Amino acid sequence: MTAMDLFGRLLASTGMVRSSAQRSAERLATLLRSLASQRGEASGAVLARRAVGLYGRLDAEGRRRLFEILARDFSPDRQSVLDAAAAYARDGSPASLVHLQHAAEPLRQEVFRRMNMAPGGTATLLGLRVELLEAMKGDPALASVDHDLVHLLSSWFNRGFLELRRIDWNTPAAILEKLIAYEAVHEIRGFPDLKRRLQRDRRCFAFFHPALPDEPLIFVEVALVDELPSQIAPIIALDSEVAEPRRAYCAAFYSITSCQPGLRGISFGNFLIKQVASDMQAELPNLKLFATLSPIPGLRNWIEKNAPGEESRERLEALAAWYLTREWENGQARDSVARFHFGNGARLERLNWQADASPKGLAQSFGMMVNYVYDLRMVERNHEEYVNRRHVVCSGAVEKLARAGEAILPRKPTAPSAPVPG
Amino acid sequence: MTAMDLFGRLLASTGMVRSSAQRSAERLATLLRSLASQRGEASGAVLARRAVGLYGRLDAEGRRRLFEILARDFSPDRQSVLDAAAAYARDGSPASLVHLQHAAEPLRQEVFRRMNMAPGGTATLLGLRVELLEAMKGDPALASVDHDLVHLLSSWFNRGFLELRRIDWNTPAAILEKLIAYEAVHEIRGFPDLKRRLQRDRRCFAFFHPALPDEPLIFVEVALVDELPSQIAPIIALDSEVAEPRRAYCAAFYSITSCQPGLRGISFGNFLIKQVASDMQAELPNLKLFATLSPIPGLRNWIEKNAPGEESRERLEALAAWYLTREWENGQARDSVARFHFGNGARLERLNWQADASPKGLAQSFGMMVNYVYDLRMVERNHEEYVNRRHVVCSGAVEKLARAGEAILPRKPTAPSAPVPG
Amino acid sequence: MTAMDLFGRLLASTGMVRSSAQRSAERLATLLRSLASQRGEASGAVLARRAVGLYGRLDAEGRRRLFEILARDFSPDRQSVLDAAAAYARDGSPASLVHLQHAAEPLRQEVFRRMNMAPGGTATLLGLRVELLEAMKGDPALASVDHDLVHLLSSWFNRGFLELRRIDWNTPAAILEKLIAYEAVHEIRGFPDLKRRLQRDRRCFAFFHPALPDEPLIFVEVALVDELPSQIAPIIALDSEVAEPRRAYCAAFYSITSCQPGLRGISFGNFLIKQVASDMQAELPNLKLFATLSPIPGLRNWIEKNAPGEESRERLEALAAWYLTREWENGQARDSVARFHFGNGARLERLNWQADASPKGLAQSFGMMVNYVYDLRMVERNHEEYVNRRHVVCSGAVEKLARAGEAILPRKPTAPSAPVPG
Amino acid sequence: MTAMDLFGRLLASTGMVRSSAQRSAERLATLLRSLASQRGEASGAVLARRAVGLYGRLDAEGRRRLFEILARDFSPDRQSVLDAAAAYARDGSPASLVHLQHAAEPLRQEVFRRMNMAPGGTATLLGLRVELLEAMKGDPALASVDHDLVHLLSSWFNRGFLELRRIDWNTPAAILEKLIAYEAVHEIRGFPDLKRRLQRDRRCFAFFHPALPDEPLIFVEVALVDELPSQIAPIIALDSEVAEPRRAYCAAFYSITSCQPGLRGISFGNFLIKQVASDMQAELPNLKLFATLSPIPGLRNWIEKNAPGEESRERLEALAAWYLTREWENGQARDSVARFHFGNGARLERLNWQADASPKGLAQSFGMMVNYVYDLRMVERNHEEYVNRRHVVCSGAVEKLARAGEAILPRKPTAPSAPVPG
Repeated sequence: MTAMDLFGRLLASTGMVRSSAQRSAERLATLLRSLASQRGEASGAVLARRAVGLYGRLDAEGRRRLFEILARDFSPDRQSVLDAAAAYARDGSPASLVHLQHAAEPLRQEVFRRMNMAPGGTATLLGLRVELLEAMKGDPALASVDHDLVHLLSSWFNRGFLELRRIDWNTPAAILEKLIAYEAVHEIRGFPDLKRRLQRDRRCFAFFHPALPDEPLIFVEVALVDELPSQIAPIIALDSEVAEPRRAYCAAFYSITSCQPGLRGISFGNFLIKQVASDMQAELPNLKLFATLSPIPGLRNWIEKNAPGEESRERLEALAAWYLTREWENGQARDSVARFHFGNGARLERLNWQADASPKGLAQSFGMMVNYVYDLRMVERNHEEYVNRRHVVCSGAVEKLARAGEAILPRKPTAPSAPVPG
Repeated sequence: MTAMDLFGRLLASTGMVRSSAQRSAERLATLLRSLASQRGEASGAVLARRAVGLYGRLDAEGRRRLFEILARDFSPDRQSVLDAAAAYARDGSPASLVHLQHAAEPLRQEVFRRMNMAPGGTATLLGLRVELLEAMKGDPALASVDHDLVHLLSSWFNRGFLELRRIDWNTPAAILEKLIAYEAVHEIRGFPDLKRRLQRDRRCFAFFHPALPDEPLIFVEVALVDELPSQIAPIIALDSEVAEPRRAYCAAFYSITSCQPGLRGISFGNFLIKQVASDMQAELPNLKLFATLSPIPGLRNWIEKNAPGEESRERLEALAAWYLTREWENGQARDSVARFHFGNGARLERLNWQADASPKGLAQSFGMMVNYVYDLRMVERNHEEYVNRRHVVCSGAVEKLARAGEAILPRKPTAPSAPVPG
Repeated sequence: MTAMDLFGRLLASTGMVRSSAQRSAERLATLLRSLASQRGEASGAVLARRAVGLYGRLDAEGRRRLFEILARDFSPDRQSVLDAAAAYARDGSPASLVHLQHAAEPLRQEVFRRMNMAPGGTATLLGLRVELLEAMKGDPALASVDHDLVHLLSSWFNRGFLELRRIDWNTPAAILEKLIAYEAVHEIRGFPDLKRRLQRDRRCFAFFHPALPDEPLIFVEVALVDELPSQIAPIIALDSEVAEPRRAYCAAFYSITSCQPGLRGISFGNFLIKQVASDMQAELPNLKLFATLSPIPGLRNWIEKNAPGEESRERLEALAAWYLTREWENGQARDSVARFHFGNGARLERLNWQADASPKGLAQSFGMMVNYVYDLRMVERNHEEYVNRRHVVCSGAVEKLARAGEAILPRKPTAPSAPVPG
Repeated sequence: MTAMDLFGRLLASTGMVRSSAQRSAERLATLLRSLASQRGEASGAVLARRAVGLYGRLDAEGRRRLFEILARDFSPDRQSVLDAAAAYARDGSPASLVHLQHAAEPLRQEVFRRMNMAPGGTATLLGLRVELLEAMKGDPALASVDHDLVHLLSSWFNRGFLELRRIDWNTPAAILEKLIAYEAVHEIRGFPDLKRRLQRDRRCFAFFHPALPDEPLIFVEVALVDELPSQIAPIIALDSEVAEPRRAYCAAFYSITSCQPGLRGISFGNFLIKQVASDMQAELPNLKLFATLSPIPGLRNWIEKNAPGEESRERLEALAAWYLTREWENGQARDSVARFHFGNGARLERLNWQADASPKGLAQSFGMMVNYVYDLRMVERNHEEYVNRRHVVCSGAVEKLARAGEAILPRKPTAPSAPVPG
């Protein structure tokens, strides 16, 4: 660092001069204010285009500054909100309520809506959110900006606007390449590896949004197999024989990956699994069982903390069953994958010992995996049990294991009540 | 009407029994409440599908009842809103503000978001709004339901999600048929008539939304001609000669029609005209002038009320110029078409005597039409003049006519200030 | 005609001067000679493009001249053919045979192959053939040119290269418009009329060739109905109720039209009917009967010539049955429509009195129509009967009527043998 | 080999028993005879489908037997040919000529036309030809079958029916995978390698036929570069910087690969290069030079045989220039790549020393490569020089080198005349 740099930093840190990043951020903020005004309305998409362009040229520091400005200066005026609330308190009329709603809506929501009008606007906003999430780690005050962005994105990415597409070997390479990059559960080692996962005894489906036609939002991989699978290796082996899908018994969901960090917290997995199960059922009436082969990501950590000891199969299986069915946190199953599937109304069917011998599998769960079963006629009921009665629905075998776990564990379950047989 | 019918009506009118329509509406309302709850979240799109189906089977009376329930029972709880406002008044924190926003958001917004998840959900909501607008005529309390629907629809039909498509003779008949039905400015008398409007010296463009792939939202018709047009008949004549688009000088926008009554109040025209002008400019650099040939829908009415008298060309032209440039209402030009184009930043270029000899043209404006010019480099500035300084931008010729109109009219203009030369 | 014109004609007719048309034709012929040579091979498609362009600019007279040149100067050299034949006579080797084949192939075949390489080449050749067929009426010597063209076209329009497309209301208007223009059996009176024929209880399919993507080659119209139809009016009525295709019993082929006069003599109808029957059977297993409702175009003419007399139903039906099953010409059924369906292996099922009350129906066949049944399991066998044993396959009822006709007719049947019951 | 096998072979070889392969071949031959008859015409595509199915189930031996039968039993009847020739000798009429053409056409041509009608027929025939070419190595009598097949295929794969498609990273993986497998000039080592060749400063185009929509027939790879390239390595390097195509000066064709061995001898390369050059010229007017960077596959072999000696740059370059411009064989340039480009009308522009340091490059041509220039305005003239005057068109520099080669070589050139400066 030169003396000049150092001097510049000192000045900047003392707030005596505005850095170039700061100036760029302020320039953009001024434009955004115009954009959200009546002028923005009249300009067609010209201002929106300009704003998206300027944002693209901001450096990391400039973006952080912009987020600060959005959090601070694009919030509602407190006094106007309170005045509107007072008026509503007085007359309770629908019109007053609407007025209060408007007063309480931050200007940055309109800013984001208008930015979305530019070509590439939606992609820009998703990118903006990725950086905002990063910036939030150091500045919790930005949460209010994120709140507005999430409000819009979850409305825009409403399931009714998503398109389900089958992914196969006729899919453009540019999209397949993204699956390879995004896959988060069982690594895809390149095109030949992916090709095996797209043969006719495998299926892959993804949701897309019309504004991002080349960007999968989430994708699921399915193996059409003879029976409920107990190991991952045969499913993802490059050289396994290709089977006849019209003879398969079980559709095994063995990987589901969310692709867009800019959509964090906006969940499509539930819709995806159920839509895919329903479509495959229609196409292949021979399929009788829809189930996952899933990891137990939090198991080892939890056991090492709560019940360290001998690592025998008997003991570990019992503890795993206990952990999955009875260990709760904030009213939900503690294991993140279990939480997702129970929330969707799936039933915990089976614990599989030596199911995933990869380093990751061993590190997460001593190599164990589980099957969650999606019985479409039962998911609503199972979900009710889980959400309203705080019951996990599981098979008798799992329940038996969990009771054995009960005996081993020194302390009480966190689950409000016992599992129910599915 | 039988005695039993009469008896039933009497009972219903006295509120002593619930009609069948009322019961159906209540059943659906119960389902909607589930749908908007956590249960709806878990059901995939099953509940949404059911709700959309039930709505489809409600009769007109049932729908009116449903709207009443939505207005009454799906509004925010007043006390919760006031509590949240009080908390925000105390600490002014972003978290309290978010809490207040949530408390003030009617549950029916979530209901509509969830209904949208069903296949055909978006189309159902547009249909629902059409009926709601009808019902509102008799029951202004439904305005709050409409407010929520508009809030969602304008977010979902954000310009960033719209697709501009060229309509030509290769477009599916199912879509062309809709243009024929929807056309609101210069009637299309069937396929042969439409065909002439789609030849290579004519252009037609429409916005579509991905959730309604076969439904044009708005479309514009353009004639590629030698000069600024002064009459509509040669443009829409079935037997006019087809000209060479690469030699045209002027792109004349002679018709623009909004197709979806369910999107009333959500405007795309501004975007459409500017996008089309910009795209055609890129495709055909020979085009030097982008302008409309537009009706003056409110002119005759206004003249008959404000300046009845002799119907000479001189007098009528002067009054028309005055009316268009100086007659304002609520801070905007009074004529609805003028208001639209001035709001978009267009310039009023020319008054055309004997431009539209059709009964409608004579009835609206003594057969006169006007040209609004879209100079893309000037629209922002013109818009500023119009919105901020309340100036209409017009040609010297129009301004001269308007001054002549000033002399005729007994009273003051309502425009806050004089037009400016464009 | 002026004196100069007359003088020119005289000169031209005496062959003393070449007309301008003649000169243009000769210029093109010179180019075609280059095109068919090695030079044409090397030029990419440049020469082909030029040739197609020149052809397009020839007037009617120039084209006739060109055809004459093609017939005269682009035929094989007789001496070379005879030399090659002599060599083959000597050694009978495959190489000599190939040599003979080459010597006997007219140069114009290569000319047409090369013209086809230009953009729009295939369409140009189809147009050329239409004019050639016209010119042949006055000049039978052109038949050899046509023979070469047919040889190529029937190879290029091999069924393996045709694409079957369903035509419905989502088909581009530009294609639908052609169906309206081409329909040859039951006139389509415009788009609304066509729309009824494309509803879900009607089907329309056409063959297309990849080189003419917007040009239907042949199309068939099908009604999905409750029973074997006996009248055409209910099928083509604009206001008939739309039925549920999943409940239909019979697929009634009520119109089949060849669209391209340039493909005269190259038949696709057999392929089309069988492919459509097979595809519809797969889509709608409820369909149990595939049959036509067909005109008898030659009936009235034949009766008036061969058995004039009283026009009672009994007599006319008997004569019609006799005509269809026993009146042969050159080893084939005499009625053109019967010939087509018998050749395809269809069975003559029923005669329908008062089936088509239109002027055309009355003029052709006293308003009678017939049903031919396509039983896909029987068509090969029926065809064998028809072609090899000269039997027409028909129902017992038709056979009985034909025998009654036998008794009425003064003379012997031309059919080599009696019909067989299907 | 067991005793039984031996016995069987003996029997088969003595013709005393027909092998199973022989029987299958004969069964199919019987079917093919039906197929080519009127019965085949009537069956729709049923017989064709059956024939294609049976062919698919023949083993290698069965196919060889089938080819023998096709050569022997599906040839024209000699006497009929001679009779037809005699009739033509007598009257010389067009009708007699047509009759002779028909008599001389082998039945197997009709067989192949009918097989093509089945779904997948065209692909089956291409596969059949690959095996036929293999079988011909041992049985030259099969050449007549191949002749008929080539006759049909070159008619069907007429350039007018081919579709030019740009290949890029949005192309389906199933097609990209084929490019990787087929590439014959500079090996593509997998998808990442291919990806670099599809970036925006590279282009790839292929011809497709509508009957084989997923099968490239031939493809060419182009690099958009600053100057006429002298080395292949920078072009195919995976990590080279991606340049701006709008600033490129030269489109360098660095690889062209025919993909279908079943189309051997039917050439599309000439069309492809010229079409691509013309299209790219239209898209990128900045491109001023269209040229190849090509191997000299036969050089080392030729030098080692004809002028072995010192391998200095000076000597090798002189010999290479001499070899390319003056060494002819059967009226064409001897080097296969040179022959292709001279035949297309390209000019030999430059010899590049150390252009391809790969083992293959060194083995073929001491690492030398050449540039052929495609000047679209000159290709016809260059082609004339090459074909009619037996001149190769080359630059002055190459001509100078060739003269130096003249001095070194002990013997006379085989070229009929000297090169001409381009």
